Amino acid sequence: MGTILSAYNVAQNRPRAEMGVSKESLAVLTLYHAPGSSSMAAHIALHEVGVPFEARALSFARRETREPWFLAINPAGKVPVLVIDGRPLTEVAGILWYLAKRYPDRRLLEVDEAWAVSWMSFLASTVHAARVKGAEAAQAAWQLAEARLDGAHWALGRYSIVDIHLFRLFWRYCGAASPSATDLPALTAHYARMMERDAVRRTIAAEAAIGYQLPA
Amino acid sequence: MGTILSAYNVAQNRPRAEMGVSKESLAVLTLYHAPGSSSMAAHIALHEVGVPFEARALSFARRETREPWFLAINPAGKVPVLVIDGRPLTEVAGILWYLAKRYPDRRLLEVDEAWAVSWMSFLASTVHAARVKGAEAAQAAWQLAEARLDGAHWALGRYSIVDIHLFRLFWRYCGAASPSATDLPALTAHYARMMERDAVRRTIAAEAAIGYQLPA
Repeated sequence: MGTILSAYNVAQNRPRAEMGVSKESLAVLTLYHAPGSSSMAAHIALHEVGVPFEARALSFARRETREPWFLAINPAGKVPVLVIDGRPLTEVAGILWYLAKRYPDRRLLEVDEAWAVSWMSFLASTVHAARVKGAEAAQAAWQLAEARLDGAHWALGRYSIVDIHLFRLFWRYCGAASPSATDLPALTAHYARMMERDAVRRTIAAEAAIGYQLPA
Repeated sequence: MGTILSAYNVAQNRPRAEMGVSKESLAVLTLYHAPGSSSMAAHIALHEVGVPFEARALSFARRETREPWFLAINPAGKVPVLVIDGRPLTEVAGILWYLAKRYPDRRLLEVDEAWAVSWMSFLASTVHAARVKGAEAAQAAWQLAEARLDGAHWALGRYSIVDIHLFRLFWRYCGAASPSATDLPALTAHYARMMERDAVRRTIAAEAAIGYQLPA
């Protein structure tokens, strides 16, 4: 295995009994991520479900996602990857889906599934894809997301993995473009609501401690 | 409503009894699509489930997806949209998910769900997104898809909505770039396998009859 920026094991810090999950239902989970990148959504979801996992941070600056040992895990050379009992699962939406379904008592997917897939697909294909098309395209895409949120507290009526996905993209946009709260009131309120969540605070604290090395 | 290229109603052609679906379980389904575009995947899935639906074809050349009446249905101005009992559902993956879950006896999602979401997300974010980055990027993305398929007959062990999504993207790539079967043997075999399916043939026949007007 190549160098990794840092690894910590949540299992060491949180006794199983505290999490209310029986030993039998636990998978061995390893998250490969890069602080502040798309993988942050998977990281938040892991904190939401509260099961033990190991986080291994990779450095974009050192091109660690392109190293042979990592390409053997994910040939696309992208984070996040969640290795579940030795089997790598890629893509933010796939990992969020896995965690929500595997730990249903956390209630992260008690919404209409087809609409959840639709929202996450919209975020990936329209909102995330707009980033590389320039500031105007990004702004237009976020206006669509604002309209889609339609003033609601959560994307699909109640808190779900869709909100985690939405938040991580908007968090990054806020950091890069400082959008006006007047232009995007529902998204700004959604962001504030997410920042109050323990899982979000823990993720940001853990990733900030490692340090952000985001691609341009 | 604006002009539409053509509309046909499968319900008129196929008696309900033939399809083995009780009247009670039927939703009123309208597909807004553009022949040969991403919406083709949703069109194939509708033929796979075999329930009545109305197909309304829009013309990119006449910019019909940007007309106010259509933007009221999908503010993103994109096809496909499946209107289900009056409620619009957008995004290929969302529509495929809806149809597979709504008609489980068609067995279009008897695979690991998280891996299905992961595959479709990979197709949208890596493979589809590579198209605009030039021929070399597209080729590299299809090599990743080939590796991911790993010689299998179907993406996830048995036929599923993932195969429909994969096929539609590869169909388009074949039309645009004529890739070598030697370079992409598993995808080429997958393509041939898909072309044997009745739902695929019916979709291509219906869309070709309207005429392809694909964006550059």
